[in-house]
Amino acid sequence: MGKSISGSDVYVLIMAGGSGTRLWPYSRVVRPKQFLDLLGTGKTLLQHTYDRMLSFVPSSQVMIVSHERYETWIKEQLPDLKEENILLEPHGRNTAPCIAYAAAKIHARAPHARMIVAPADHIIQGEDDFKDCIHLALEACQDGDRLITLGIKPSRPDTGYGYIQFLDDSPLTNQKGKSGDLKSVKTFAEKPSPELAKEFLSSGDFLWNAGIFVWKTDAILRAFQKHLPDLYDVFEEGKDLFYQEGEHAFIQKAYALIRSISVDYGILEKHAEVFVVRSEFGWSDLGSWNALYNLQKKDEDENVFLGCEAITYESRGNFVRCQAHKLVILDGMEDYFIGDFGDVLILCKRSEEARFRSYVSDAREKGGDKWV
Amino acid sequence: MGKSISGSDVYVLIMAGGSGTRLWPYSRVVRPKQFLDLLGTGKTLLQHTYDRMLSFVPSSQVMIVSHERYETWIKEQLPDLKEENILLEPHGRNTAPCIAYAAAKIHARAPHARMIVAPADHIIQGEDDFKDCIHLALEACQDGDRLITLGIKPSRPDTGYGYIQFLDDSPLTNQKGKSGDLKSVKTFAEKPSPELAKEFLSSGDFLWNAGIFVWKTDAILRAFQKHLPDLYDVFEEGKDLFYQEGEHAFIQKAYALIRSISVDYGILEKHAEVFVVRSEFGWSDLGSWNALYNLQKKDEDENVFLGCEAITYESRGNFVRCQAHKLVILDGMEDYFIGDFGDVLILCKRSEEARFRSYVSDAREKGGDKWV
Repeated sequence: MGKSISGSDVYVLIMAGGSGTRLWPYSRVVRPKQFLDLLGTGKTLLQHTYDRMLSFVPSSQVMIVSHERYETWIKEQLPDLKEENILLEPHGRNTAPCIAYAAAKIHARAPHARMIVAPADHIIQGEDDFKDCIHLALEACQDGDRLITLGIKPSRPDTGYGYIQFLDDSPLTNQKGKSGDLKSVKTFAEKPSPELAKEFLSSGDFLWNAGIFVWKTDAILRAFQKHLPDLYDVFEEGKDLFYQEGEHAFIQKAYALIRSISVDYGILEKHAEVFVVRSEFGWSDLGSWNALYNLQKKDEDENVFLGCEAITYESRGNFVRCQAHKLVILDGMEDYFIGDFGDVLILCKRSEEARFRSYVSDAREKGGDKWV
Repeated sequence: MGKSISGSDVYVLIMAGGSGTRLWPYSRVVRPKQFLDLLGTGKTLLQHTYDRMLSFVPSSQVMIVSHERYETWIKEQLPDLKEENILLEPHGRNTAPCIAYAAAKIHARAPHARMIVAPADHIIQGEDDFKDCIHLALEACQDGDRLITLGIKPSRPDTGYGYIQFLDDSPLTNQKGKSGDLKSVKTFAEKPSPELAKEFLSSGDFLWNAGIFVWKTDAILRAFQKHLPDLYDVFEEGKDLFYQEGEHAFIQKAYALIRSISVDYGILEKHAEVFVVRSEFGWSDLGSWNALYNLQKKDEDENVFLGCEAITYESRGNFVRCQAHKLVILDGMEDYFIGDFGDVLILCKRSEEARFRSYVSDAREKGGDKWV
């Protein structure tokens, strides 16, 4: 494992098109979480992801794919990025179409490229372990048409993640032996029930599906040709238009025809040579305020305060996130999430992740698009 | 009882100098509660009090006394008021000095005046009952040197108010017989213990001391001369300067010598002819957020929302007060006060009135004058 693995043939695709509601009211349709400084670090999640990827490739080899409505955020937050590296979709169509688009576009210029595909809105802690795992995957994908995914060793029976079951082989091992060894994938599992999640955890051969992929572009394109030929054909047909004036009009037309499908379901679950790098770096998809709370440093009463100063009395386990840097007084509050975001103030039990769907739909019913 | 009672000889003194902390963080030292729209009606408490008094007298006969730091608020909120009707004190010295000052100043122009004295920051509900009681007091004070105070029939054993015990006589009765009859005062009692408050309530001869007074100006001046002669002498000496250029300099000098003392303690508890109008209008000194909550119309779950829109889930008995008109989502909150005031957000149990002193002193310790 070493820096020599990364090289001029490696490209990065950051997927930045999501618009979830689970971190509402900070995350909004007009500015979803990847464009927000959720951690209160002064950088948005997209900026963190981009910076992380610059340890593998120069910025000229980083592509961002997103919905066209987010073009302004991307340009504002990544001013160094070249225009041609921003892939804009007129409609969100899940992960398979945007990966097919990016792979075809990269392949048009660099037929021997390898790709790292990563979501813009995840958190990674332990950058060195992460790098080791990516380097292992970049090496492993050179062999045949292997599609490599990163799987995180689960620390709890989380029901919010998809799982990957691996076989007890080791086609390739991280030479440092710390984090990361390669395993053949046996099966992919959707978000499990609490009981099933416990079984997954105790079995020892299930990993969280981190949605981070590594492969050769020609390998993934061949996989599209085989498993999703209609999608393959769309971008094959337009390949002469990439980097040209006609690309925008072509994409507008193409996306009208494309159905929504995930790369997991459309490709990985069907492909023969799928491998997982068993990884142990800190990872979260930030699927809820509670997930963000779990990642933060707590005060002596297990409270977390971001974007505010606080005075507390008999208050434990609360997570307060403010936008304006205000003073927060808490007295007699336990295990609450308190979010103050300009036009919306929310107070709920930290554990009630599932309720956010109702909050957002009820807020939409009351105020139209005003608050969502 | 009738409109004929009020007339050209009636003057009003509104006391607007307080700067309490019990309604922090909305109420601040630089803008205490009398200058705030606490009820969310679009009018401040001072404006409500002023408007109420205009049913007795023209604006030329309304005087406001306050600390000089609040001059701007007064002029902004009562633009019709003449400059000479604003009495500014360089230091707060409780109620006796400001009443002596105003009485002397009114007396210099209108030697046969009667005065209504009222705090700027109380709430009165049932304006007609209030008017009847004031008219009764205005009539009653014509006889001798009677000093009249308004006492509110208590509805609960409140430990936050002073009490007035009356004798079972009736020197004068409201002819309508509804609210208001005159009683001789037996004694004044400080804020009682919970046990004593219960005894006061069940005895039937105790009233809440509303701090609203009615008297002839020459009667109150004679009372000052007798019971607080040093204070009387100060303003007697300066009487030729009232309404003149020299008034400001005189007041600056005079207040340096004056001690802090309440009119209750300094005059009323010592005077022979003190009477109370037993009143039944709705009254509160707004001594806490909880007091304000009790006065508001509740939703079907006993929640009150001022200055915001709300969506609630399993939440009861909360009081939310916002400044910006934001959306508030409450889930699983019971009996909390939630106040959002720009730079300070507070969450505490509604009943914890006594804690506000700590909140303010702790906020001062943390941020100096920034938040208080």
